[in-house]
Amino acid sequence: MIEYPNFNFEIEHKAPDSRARVGTLTTPHGVIETPNYIFCGTKAAIKALSPAQMIEAQTDIILANTYHLMLQPGADLIEKMGGLHKFMNWNGPMLTDSGGFQVFSLGEGTMANEIKGKSKGHDNKSLMEITEEGCVFRSYIDNSKIKLTPEGAMEIQRKLGADLLMQFDECTPYHVDKDYTARSMEMSMRWGDRCLAEFERHHNGAQGVYGIVQGGVHEDLRQISAAYTADRDFFGTAIGGCLGGSDEEMEAVVASSVPHIHAHRPVHFLGIGRIKDIFRFVRLGIDTFDCVIPTRLARHGAAFIKGHPGETINITNAKYREDHSPLDARVDVPASRDFSKAYIYHLIKAGEILGMQILAQHNVATINMLMREVRQAIRDDRLDDLEKEWRG
Amino acid sequence: MIEYPNFNFEIEHKAPDSRARVGTLTTPHGVIETPNYIFCGTKAAIKALSPAQMIEAQTDIILANTYHLMLQPGADLIEKMGGLHKFMNWNGPMLTDSGGFQVFSLGEGTMANEIKGKSKGHDNKSLMEITEEGCVFRSYIDNSKIKLTPEGAMEIQRKLGADLLMQFDECTPYHVDKDYTARSMEMSMRWGDRCLAEFERHHNGAQGVYGIVQGGVHEDLRQISAAYTADRDFFGTAIGGCLGGSDEEMEAVVASSVPHIHAHRPVHFLGIGRIKDIFRFVRLGIDTFDCVIPTRLARHGAAFIKGHPGETINITNAKYREDHSPLDARVDVPASRDFSKAYIYHLIKAGEILGMQILAQHNVATINMLMREVRQAIRDDRLDDLEKEWRG
Repeated sequence: MIEYPNFNFEIEHKAPDSRARVGTLTTPHGVIETPNYIFCGTKAAIKALSPAQMIEAQTDIILANTYHLMLQPGADLIEKMGGLHKFMNWNGPMLTDSGGFQVFSLGEGTMANEIKGKSKGHDNKSLMEITEEGCVFRSYIDNSKIKLTPEGAMEIQRKLGADLLMQFDECTPYHVDKDYTARSMEMSMRWGDRCLAEFERHHNGAQGVYGIVQGGVHEDLRQISAAYTADRDFFGTAIGGCLGGSDEEMEAVVASSVPHIHAHRPVHFLGIGRIKDIFRFVRLGIDTFDCVIPTRLARHGAAFIKGHPGETINITNAKYREDHSPLDARVDVPASRDFSKAYIYHLIKAGEILGMQILAQHNVATINMLMREVRQAIRDDRLDDLEKEWRG
Repeated sequence: MIEYPNFNFEIEHKAPDSRARVGTLTTPHGVIETPNYIFCGTKAAIKALSPAQMIEAQTDIILANTYHLMLQPGADLIEKMGGLHKFMNWNGPMLTDSGGFQVFSLGEGTMANEIKGKSKGHDNKSLMEITEEGCVFRSYIDNSKIKLTPEGAMEIQRKLGADLLMQFDECTPYHVDKDYTARSMEMSMRWGDRCLAEFERHHNGAQGVYGIVQGGVHEDLRQISAAYTADRDFFGTAIGGCLGGSDEEMEAVVASSVPHIHAHRPVHFLGIGRIKDIFRFVRLGIDTFDCVIPTRLARHGAAFIKGHPGETINITNAKYREDHSPLDARVDVPASRDFSKAYIYHLIKAGEILGMQILAQHNVATINMLMREVRQAIRDDRLDDLEKEWRG
């Protein structure tokens, strides 16, 4: 049996009418309250923001991507540099994924929508082979052939040294049939056992590993996969894989998974994180979210605004050209408070990096404000009211 | 007679064996000590750095470029937004140039080396016409025809609202003959008078204007132009135009200009600012410098390092791949102190904006440290020793 003496998850408050809950998640690098949002520092950096700017935006936890880091600069180098925390100068809690999602999403992220069911299937040109042992793909850095196995994914994540790890799984796309999805899920379960065995060999209390619920859009498969994760010595549970092509399908997938997972472990929802998603999936029992959109939207000129229908404004809209008002004076961070929309409009139009930096810090701070308010609203049993405040 | 009641320049200490001096330059937005360095916020933003990050790097004064801002977002818009200080959220002293240098350097900066004598002449494709009235050029934003006159340059700078302004001048290139340079210089003197007349019409004490010494590499012309600036009611003197093709020619130009300029006015050297230049030209009586290189070099992976022969290291050199040491622990700013060279190497190789941000803050902080040490060394009469410490 694997124990996690330096980790803990306590549920402190449960909503009376949904699975929403407030908890505390303890890691060797600190305690965070849940529900919370894990910001993506894909290549060991948050796009356009320094660690100090992330802390200023009241960020609790970040993640980095195993897939990108194993290719550049490599897990051995990061281990030699003292691990990801020291490398990035981030001393708070951190998560790494297993690399699986990116390997199975074409190596460049272009199949991400396909896995999420938002587009038709197409060839995955960088993925060369999937077998029981693992998979082989081509590096986007130098086109070399790379093998990734469950044991390899755990070894790399051990060298990276994040607090929270993910098992290696096959991320099944939307267009495959149920039979393929079932066989894929079963392999992910065998891979999960191999991950735990490899994890246990080196376990020193510094890391905790999550099992991942697969099973596509099929309720019966999701239940089997969820029960599998509950049965094994994972620290937490993640919900991954194909979530369907619509909001309704996605909700059904989560609703059919959560009742069968371990009730006392933290639940992470992989790669989802618009404001509407936070409200929907907190109610279904999700404790942590991650998504690239707060910083990716920033690079496209979009700012999350509390109460704005549609969640974001696009600062490059001509109506902001002479707008004296700040992005959002309610958000206590320089980016949201100290610059006019007209200035940020100018920066984005002129291609100035500072524009992206301002929008990125604003979006991160806004999502962190959202998560603080969500936690308080669950405690106060007023999540519906809060959702109206945020979603207009 | 134009008076500058809200401005002052006091020389507090003079070196016994050179023209080096320590002074205080008072503007409506604060007092700075000189010699000092004015960092380029070309399009109303320092590349990759926020105002807070500039202040953290102990920056005293910045500039913005009239040429870029008149085209995008336009001086009227910035005036409507309350002026550049408010627009950029920079509350310290600020300078704008007249737009002349960029108009005469092809609209894209590609003739800058030509003006500085570093390349052979070529066609200036965006400059359409130079007459006594002013010049006409094509906008790099929308290809429209734009007229810029001495009066127009002052009006735009008045709307931008910086503390320190520059007269409009023709920036003569290197390859023209002495006769052309002389006629150009004489026109710049007439343009200077028109600038002062226009400036005086609206003068309310908020701005101070610099005359610019032209005359190419010709000692007699430089003397005439210097004497002209001293004779008129400029607040300060700038040294501009073609400075020759070598360090020796550049030094000769400054050495032949400074003895003839007004002895009690601050002296700005336009567009020059490597470490070796600071030491050479402080000795010749320069009080302020400006140059894009601290932030431009950062975008190319280069970091100024005190004592490093050649002034900069390039962080993308393979020898830094596993280097645990910070850029420079002597520089008291997060960018210089809190990240390993190996991490910054990775960020630049991976194309992460954070890498540029770190190098930019480090370079700005290092140049500010240099200027503080230069001022102290002049006071202590040990500039030669300090130069050895910096230049190795």
